[in-house]
Amino acid sequence: MSRSVRIAIDAMGGDNGASVTIQGAAVALERRPDLSFVITGNERIVGPLLKEHPKLAAVSTVRHSEIAVAMDAKPSQALRAGRYHSSMWMALEAVKKGDAEIAVSAGNTGALMAMARFCLKPMGEIERPAIAGIWPTMRGESIVLDVGATIGADARHLVDLAIMGAAMARVVYDIERPTVGLLNVGVEEIKGNEAVKEAGKILRDSNLPSLDYVGFIEGNDIGKGTVDVVVTEGFTGNIALKAAEGTAKQFAEYLRRAMSRTLSARIGYLFARGAFEALREKMDPRRSNGGVFLGLEGVVIKSHGGTDAVGFASAIELAYDMARFDLLANIRSMVMRKVEPPAVPARA
Amino acid sequence: MSRSVRIAIDAMGGDNGASVTIQGAAVALERRPDLSFVITGNERIVGPLLKEHPKLAAVSTVRHSEIAVAMDAKPSQALRAGRYHSSMWMALEAVKKGDAEIAVSAGNTGALMAMARFCLKPMGEIERPAIAGIWPTMRGESIVLDVGATIGADARHLVDLAIMGAAMARVVYDIERPTVGLLNVGVEEIKGNEAVKEAGKILRDSNLPSLDYVGFIEGNDIGKGTVDVVVTEGFTGNIALKAAEGTAKQFAEYLRRAMSRTLSARIGYLFARGAFEALREKMDPRRSNGGVFLGLEGVVIKSHGGTDAVGFASAIELAYDMARFDLLANIRSMVMRKVEPPAVPARA
Repeated sequence: MSRSVRIAIDAMGGDNGASVTIQGAAVALERRPDLSFVITGNERIVGPLLKEHPKLAAVSTVRHSEIAVAMDAKPSQALRAGRYHSSMWMALEAVKKGDAEIAVSAGNTGALMAMARFCLKPMGEIERPAIAGIWPTMRGESIVLDVGATIGADARHLVDLAIMGAAMARVVYDIERPTVGLLNVGVEEIKGNEAVKEAGKILRDSNLPSLDYVGFIEGNDIGKGTVDVVVTEGFTGNIALKAAEGTAKQFAEYLRRAMSRTLSARIGYLFARGAFEALREKMDPRRSNGGVFLGLEGVVIKSHGGTDAVGFASAIELAYDMARFDLLANIRSMVMRKVEPPAVPARA
Repeated sequence: MSRSVRIAIDAMGGDNGASVTIQGAAVALERRPDLSFVITGNERIVGPLLKEHPKLAAVSTVRHSEIAVAMDAKPSQALRAGRYHSSMWMALEAVKKGDAEIAVSAGNTGALMAMARFCLKPMGEIERPAIAGIWPTMRGESIVLDVGATIGADARHLVDLAIMGAAMARVVYDIERPTVGLLNVGVEEIKGNEAVKEAGKILRDSNLPSLDYVGFIEGNDIGKGTVDVVVTEGFTGNIALKAAEGTAKQFAEYLRRAMSRTLSARIGYLFARGAFEALREKMDPRRSNGGVFLGLEGVVIKSHGGTDAVGFASAIELAYDMARFDLLANIRSMVMRKVEPPAVPARA
C-alpha cells in the first residue's frame, strides 16, 4: 500500500488549542511520512504555527474558521453556535465530503459527538454511536466500548457494540476473529441485568463469523487482557475507565512518595532509574490517547482535551492505522453481514 | 467503653475454610483483646484448630453445623440446602438473636446475601440491601456503595445508599457530616441517567443534616478521595471496583518486571527495598478486606473468599469498629430521620 493517508485536524480543539495540535501533527508526520492533513481553524493562529513546521505545511491544506467550540459548551449550545462554521464541524465535514479519511479533535467530547451524529449520520442499522477506548493490559491492549457515548443499552445495542468493537480489533490488531466478552458482575449465566443476559444469548446463539464470543467477564478481566474486545454500556464503561485511570495515578503517586522518603530509597531510585523510566512509559496515558467514535458514516477520534503534542500525535497515529486498514469499510461489511443469518451453523 | 465486642464467625466460609478463619480470629484477638466470638462450623474441624489457640478458645462459643455452603452454589440452592442448618446461616442467626453484634463470613457472596436478607430482614423503609466497599484513596479511604448487592437502582434507592453510606462513614471515620458524591459520567447537571439526576436533585433539595451532598463526581474522583462516600448503582459499582483492582495488580506486575530486568534495577531494588515494602503494604488488598452489607436489621461483613488469616483478621477488625460505634443504631436513626422533613431549611 503506497497511497497516502489524509487526516482532518480540528486545530482549535483541546485545552491548549493550536499550539498543541499543530505540533502534534508535526510529530506524527515525522513518524508517518505518508500522512497529509486538512487543518481546520483560525488562519491567523494556525498560519504562524505552520511556518515553524515547513514539512507539515507542505502536506497540509488549511480551511479557515472563526469559530472554536468552547471546551465547556453544552452539546446543544455547541451545535447551535458551531454547526457549519466551527473548526470542529469543518473537520467532520472534510470526512463527510471525502476530503479526509478520519477526523481528529481534542475538543469538547459532548459537542464533538453531537456534531458527528448530525454531520456524519448513523451507519446503516446502527442506532446509536459508541466511543471505543484502548485499554493497556497485562497482555498488550484491549478495546473497551462504549466508554461514554450513550447512557443505557438494550441487548441489541450491546450486540452492535460487540460487532463494531470486533471490526476495530480486526483492523487495529490484525486478528481475524477477535475474542469478545460482555462485562458483567459475575461469570455465571444467571447474573447481571436483563440486557446483558439477552445480549449474551444472542451472541452465543448467532455465532457470528467475525468474532469469537467468550461469554461474561468481570471488571478485573479488563486489565488481565482476557479478551480483545470488552463490551459494556456507556455509563458503566465511562466510570470503569476513569476509576482505573484514577487507580493508575494513585499507584504512581504512592511510588513517587515511597521512593523519596528515605536516603536509601533515593539511592535505589538512582540505580533503578532506567526501570522507572520504562515503567513510566508503559503507564503513560498518552500512549493510548484516543477515543474512537464508531457507528457513524465516518470515523472520528477524540483526543484527551488536556493532552500535549506527544499525546495528540498518538491520536493521529491511531487515526492513521485505522484509515490504512479501512476501519469504516470493515465495520460496514460486518454490520451488513449481521443482517444475514450466519453462514456457519450455530454451535451445539 | 469497656464492654466487649462479640462477633459471629462463619468458620467454614472461604476458599480455605476453618484453617484461615480460626487463625484470622486469633490474629484479630491479639490486636483487640476485648473481642469474643460465636464460631459456627463443624466441631470436628473447628475443635482441633481452637486447641492450637487457647486464648481464642477461651473467649469463643462453638455452635456445631454439619453443613458448609459451597463457594460455587447458586444463591437459591444455598438457601434451600443451607437455611437454618449451615454454618453461614447460624452465624447470621446469632446476630438476629442478639448473641453477636456482627457476622463475618468469607463464604459465597450471593448465598450470604440471600441468607442475610431472609434471616435478618430489611431495615425499616430500606427496600434493597447494599454492599459497601472500602476504597483506598490518595487522601486515605472512602466508602463506595453499592458494589454489587443489587442490579439497577432508582433515585430512591440511590438516596438510601447515600444515607447508609454516610452513617457508615460517620461510624468508621468519625466524621460528623460526611461528604457524599453521586458517581456520574460528567459533573455537569445535564449529564447522566435519569435515576442519578433525580437522586441528585433530591439530595440537594433535602439538604439532610446527616450528610454533605457535594454533587456529581466522576470515576477518577474515587481514587482522589474527593468525597467520603461514593454512591452508585450495584452493577456499575462492582465493575468499577474490580476494574480498579485489576489496574492495581497490573501496575504491581509492571513494577515487578521493571525492577528485575537489569542488574542496575536489581541493585536499586535492594537499596529501595524498604520503600517497596511500604508501597506493597499500602496497596495490600488485605488491608481493606471486607464488603459491608447494609440495609438489613443486622450488619454482615463479607471477607474475600480467597483471603488469608491476615485478611480475615482485617474483616473482623472492621466488624469490631462498626460494632464498637454501633453502626446499626446510627443507620437506623438516620433512616428514620429521613422520613421527617429536614430540620434545616433547604439551601437557596
